[in-house]
Amino acid sequence: MHTVTQPGSSAPRSAAATPARVAVVGATGYTGQELLRILSRHPSVTLRAAMSSGATASRKLPALNRLWGGEITPLSPEALREVDVVFLALPDAAAASLAPDLVAAGVRVIDLSGAFRLKNADERARWYPETRRIPHGLAYGLTELERVALTGARLVANPGCYPTATLLALVPLAAAGLLLPESDVVVDAKSGVSGAGKTPSERTHFSECHGSLSAYGVFGHRHGAEIQQGLAGHQVTFVPHLVPLHRGILATVYVRLAPGTSEETLAEVYQQAYADALFVRLVGAALPEIKHVAYTNFCDIGWRVDASGRGIIVSVIDNLLKGASGQAVQNLNVMLGVDERTGLW
Amino acid sequence: MHTVTQPGSSAPRSAAATPARVAVVGATGYTGQELLRILSRHPSVTLRAAMSSGATASRKLPALNRLWGGEITPLSPEALREVDVVFLALPDAAAASLAPDLVAAGVRVIDLSGAFRLKNADERARWYPETRRIPHGLAYGLTELERVALTGARLVANPGCYPTATLLALVPLAAAGLLLPESDVVVDAKSGVSGAGKTPSERTHFSECHGSLSAYGVFGHRHGAEIQQGLAGHQVTFVPHLVPLHRGILATVYVRLAPGTSEETLAEVYQQAYADALFVRLVGAALPEIKHVAYTNFCDIGWRVDASGRGIIVSVIDNLLKGASGQAVQNLNVMLGVDERTGLW
Amino acid sequence: MHTVTQPGSSAPRSAAATPARVAVVGATGYTGQELLRILSRHPSVTLRAAMSSGATASRKLPALNRLWGGEITPLSPEALREVDVVFLALPDAAAASLAPDLVAAGVRVIDLSGAFRLKNADERARWYPETRRIPHGLAYGLTELERVALTGARLVANPGCYPTATLLALVPLAAAGLLLPESDVVVDAKSGVSGAGKTPSERTHFSECHGSLSAYGVFGHRHGAEIQQGLAGHQVTFVPHLVPLHRGILATVYVRLAPGTSEETLAEVYQQAYADALFVRLVGAALPEIKHVAYTNFCDIGWRVDASGRGIIVSVIDNLLKGASGQAVQNLNVMLGVDERTGLW
Amino acid sequence: MHTVTQPGSSAPRSAAATPARVAVVGATGYTGQELLRILSRHPSVTLRAAMSSGATASRKLPALNRLWGGEITPLSPEALREVDVVFLALPDAAAASLAPDLVAAGVRVIDLSGAFRLKNADERARWYPETRRIPHGLAYGLTELERVALTGARLVANPGCYPTATLLALVPLAAAGLLLPESDVVVDAKSGVSGAGKTPSERTHFSECHGSLSAYGVFGHRHGAEIQQGLAGHQVTFVPHLVPLHRGILATVYVRLAPGTSEETLAEVYQQAYADALFVRLVGAALPEIKHVAYTNFCDIGWRVDASGRGIIVSVIDNLLKGASGQAVQNLNVMLGVDERTGLW
Repeated sequence: MHTVTQPGSSAPRSAAATPARVAVVGATGYTGQELLRILSRHPSVTLRAAMSSGATASRKLPALNRLWGGEITPLSPEALREVDVVFLALPDAAAASLAPDLVAAGVRVIDLSGAFRLKNADERARWYPETRRIPHGLAYGLTELERVALTGARLVANPGCYPTATLLALVPLAAAGLLLPESDVVVDAKSGVSGAGKTPSERTHFSECHGSLSAYGVFGHRHGAEIQQGLAGHQVTFVPHLVPLHRGILATVYVRLAPGTSEETLAEVYQQAYADALFVRLVGAALPEIKHVAYTNFCDIGWRVDASGRGIIVSVIDNLLKGASGQAVQNLNVMLGVDERTGLW
Repeated sequence: MHTVTQPGSSAPRSAAATPARVAVVGATGYTGQELLRILSRHPSVTLRAAMSSGATASRKLPALNRLWGGEITPLSPEALREVDVVFLALPDAAAASLAPDLVAAGVRVIDLSGAFRLKNADERARWYPETRRIPHGLAYGLTELERVALTGARLVANPGCYPTATLLALVPLAAAGLLLPESDVVVDAKSGVSGAGKTPSERTHFSECHGSLSAYGVFGHRHGAEIQQGLAGHQVTFVPHLVPLHRGILATVYVRLAPGTSEETLAEVYQQAYADALFVRLVGAALPEIKHVAYTNFCDIGWRVDASGRGIIVSVIDNLLKGASGQAVQNLNVMLGVDERTGLW
Repeated sequence: MHTVTQPGSSAPRSAAATPARVAVVGATGYTGQELLRILSRHPSVTLRAAMSSGATASRKLPALNRLWGGEITPLSPEALREVDVVFLALPDAAAASLAPDLVAAGVRVIDLSGAFRLKNADERARWYPETRRIPHGLAYGLTELERVALTGARLVANPGCYPTATLLALVPLAAAGLLLPESDVVVDAKSGVSGAGKTPSERTHFSECHGSLSAYGVFGHRHGAEIQQGLAGHQVTFVPHLVPLHRGILATVYVRLAPGTSEETLAEVYQQAYADALFVRLVGAALPEIKHVAYTNFCDIGWRVDASGRGIIVSVIDNLLKGASGQAVQNLNVMLGVDERTGLW
Repeated sequence: MHTVTQPGSSAPRSAAATPARVAVVGATGYTGQELLRILSRHPSVTLRAAMSSGATASRKLPALNRLWGGEITPLSPEALREVDVVFLALPDAAAASLAPDLVAAGVRVIDLSGAFRLKNADERARWYPETRRIPHGLAYGLTELERVALTGARLVANPGCYPTATLLALVPLAAAGLLLPESDVVVDAKSGVSGAGKTPSERTHFSECHGSLSAYGVFGHRHGAEIQQGLAGHQVTFVPHLVPLHRGILATVYVRLAPGTSEETLAEVYQQAYADALFVRLVGAALPEIKHVAYTNFCDIGWRVDASGRGIIVSVIDNLLKGASGQAVQNLNVMLGVDERTGLW
């Protein structure tokens, strides 16, 4: 077993001089509520608006009572132009339509939908046909790997939850040339049910999920295209599963490694890649579990390698935080130039 | 601690000479599926039809694949007149409308809805306003306490799940005069989510139930009226709760007992009441748990009494079996004159 | 439905001038870990030691990795004398032995065990026979109701989880004379499994709890005596239940109210009692659920009253926070004279 | 999508002329209890003894109350020689020691442990070093694939739960030459917690499993060797996961298929392999879920194939039934020459 050296624990430091004015659109969903919870106590921002579509604008959020004293208001694109940063926690089509206008009006946008995640036009047309305009200043918001691009971004495509857990595990290995050329990569991912959002359905009905387990979206999940985009040169097979828990994703990633690659090799590569990544914790052969990261913005990564070069990497996140709202605020922090941990520690 | 003597274990005996022709209406819901599962292998019946409303008639039931080879067909009142017994697993209003016509046509009906459970006209008008016609030959289907009436019944009002667990615990005590006159009775009942049925809703969305717990229907649940009906002379306070499990009800019942009543007194009363009740198991001070009865038709009852005369009775059932479909088949068995356990053991 | 007026949302204010030196004993259990998590980022303290018995001192706490950089060390009573405040998250007997010596040495102690909760010597001898010495300066740590006593306390008996949820619901009503004299009070409480601690047992084995529900400790749970202590003049019947979730308690309390008492009456009484209670949220007839308070230090209280004077109060807390470690830190804040929310908001 | 033709639904037929005398050793564990439940109502056997080690012999089994009227007795090897068939639900070492003596005494043995599953002596010495004697008449009890050998077997090595789900999915494909030669096979398997048995541990403590998910036994689980044994010519990577549910296994199997293989090809191969397999249900592209097989002896298999030849097979079983006690009784039925479904339908 290798030794892992990474940044230690200390409190976040700075806050921005003038608080940024921010707004959340789609505030009543699970990711929207997490945004409200975080942003309402974030020292570098003032939360100016929390909007929702008409149908849910009157919804009560009893868990936020007293933590956040504001009100959900109906979506008003005009009012959004008076803030500095807008978080969009909307369906893909709504985000695809709204984001370009906001960017054009000078508002920076952090979009939690999938509308702007795929760079290849054909792929985007296939998986997100509603996305027709791509503003300038677009960055992909996988924070640890895109900090430079994020600093000046006008529109951030916040990654999907499955791609976040998967690409943080895979990209450093691919970049270091450790994956056997042309080898298969299998991503078997398991997600809690909150990943399916707040709209009731038979699939997410308690009695249909409790005590059960299922694969879904085989060969047809949009996050597969997003993972493939981050891993050129390998054929990625991605199968997501729904597991009976509320929050969290565990991705088990199967790779074929270049001859001679050991667990120590991986440890070195990951440590170098994440030397200043405060939210990535490397646990090596002590594989991580969802309970270690639930309700946090951490991504924990562990790995095992056998003599044949078979590598198994396990990556866990909280799908609503590092997989959505937490990473969105982490991106905000990079954009504002404040400590990445602000509001998230 | 008392000793409990009750009927031992042995296999069910008889089967009816000529199989009864039965049909299930509302076959795709949770109780409907349980009926199909039981009736498709019940030696005294032939399952002639499994009907559903148009919207769900094409639904697949993969869990029943190969156990039951039939098809769900659209509701056809005419076809129902050609069977001997119809099980109605429908919403109250639909049952209130359909049952009287079937009875009038000579078909025996076992109704799993609440439409015919309340005997008092005012109470019925308050809680089940859609019920306008009461056929002759109506019996309340709490099997252990109503066997004589059930034998010749034309229409059986199968009890609610909460009343089944509660009244099996309370009626023998009341009948034996053990409850302090005019004393309060508190029924704090906890149910798995399948009791809410198969239609998705925010209340029964996995992410809203998992890891949580709630009281609901306080002072306004129809099962409260049904419990009160079975317990004249006492004011019953009934509060149901939704707990994050799939199947099962646990009712904790708080009573004030006549002076001198001991745990042994309760043991004797229950043993006498349930001397030939094959599905009631008396566990005394070893309080029962849902896992002991899940996926069975048993009702397990335990009790504790302190020196002040405070009695606590805990009663558990599987809400889909003894609380619905299992008891419905138990009632069928009484109506057909076969061993009560047929198809259920 | 009444209107509820309570303190609004705003950020905590102050921090103590000189950080207090604190230590946690019993740091590897669930409440110990919560204390580490909170205290390691509490601005008014420096966490000087986290101790545990020898057997568990080498235990890893992967969830705290990077949040807390310290190490678990073996219990050293001597080292504890060099801090200002010690948190004891130990079994009753160990706390009963250790606390008086620490107090005698001038250390302030916040004890999360039950050793010092009962004031009546006979009751204490019955339920906590290991408790033989009672130091001066003992206060009962139900923060909202004991602030004055807590300010100068040398030893705080942090309340049990069930009593916290129950007494916050009941004491204001009793103090206002709203409970019918001599009337019965029934407390039907439901707890997540973390309340049973971290030591594996058959009762808390996953496969024995999942999908099940049970009452336990009937007429024999020590929290019953603690609840009764807080509610003189009424006979309290307390039955705890184990429910298949991790964190949270929901207590359903049944009372008989003085004639004429309405939901509005209760609203007024509670608002007055909790006018400056930042962690008590009054939700009235919109009954609270565990998910609203899980992972927070809030206690949410709702209530319903019918025409007969039957009152039902529902109170929910996170058993590890408001029911244990959160309230312990809240008490620390009162003792230090800093904002009660410090470290908890 | 292909059409699946398989045997339809009809009731089991025959029973043996003279009931076989059977005994269960290790009767208080989860698999032992399931054996008691099934065998106590199995028409072709008489259950003569249910034994356990001294420590648990006095254990109550409240769920079996009235279904089974017998008593758990201490293990008596002598008494076991007077029955026809012994089921061993014991730890590996105990089974390795006891089984050969019983076989030598003319008793047929169905062993649910792993002691006799591996045929290669080196592999067996590595994973099951306590197994020192291999009786004649040993058969591997994967019923659907080993019926001929089972008919006359003296000792049946009942397969592991993971190998049952996995090999039923893979063996027909390998036998038909559909797997690309030398290609990797990845088996990502997810199991409910009952697979870990009844002994409490930190891993299986409710609060450690609920809301979490973990991989375990990577490169070191004995079921990996058992799966590899059934799949010569391919390197199998097997990673089991613990998921927060009670009963059930879902195995997601990733294979590379020979060029031109389609979903229809797989359908044909599976249908031929399982033409008379009453407990294997082929669901094709409608992937199976644990809830479809929980509490049954079914194995449901579904599959998807993409244009690149990547095949994904999903196989689900109830780990305590088809993965243990159900398959053990299925094997008994084959050994007795009665309908395979007897006692299991």
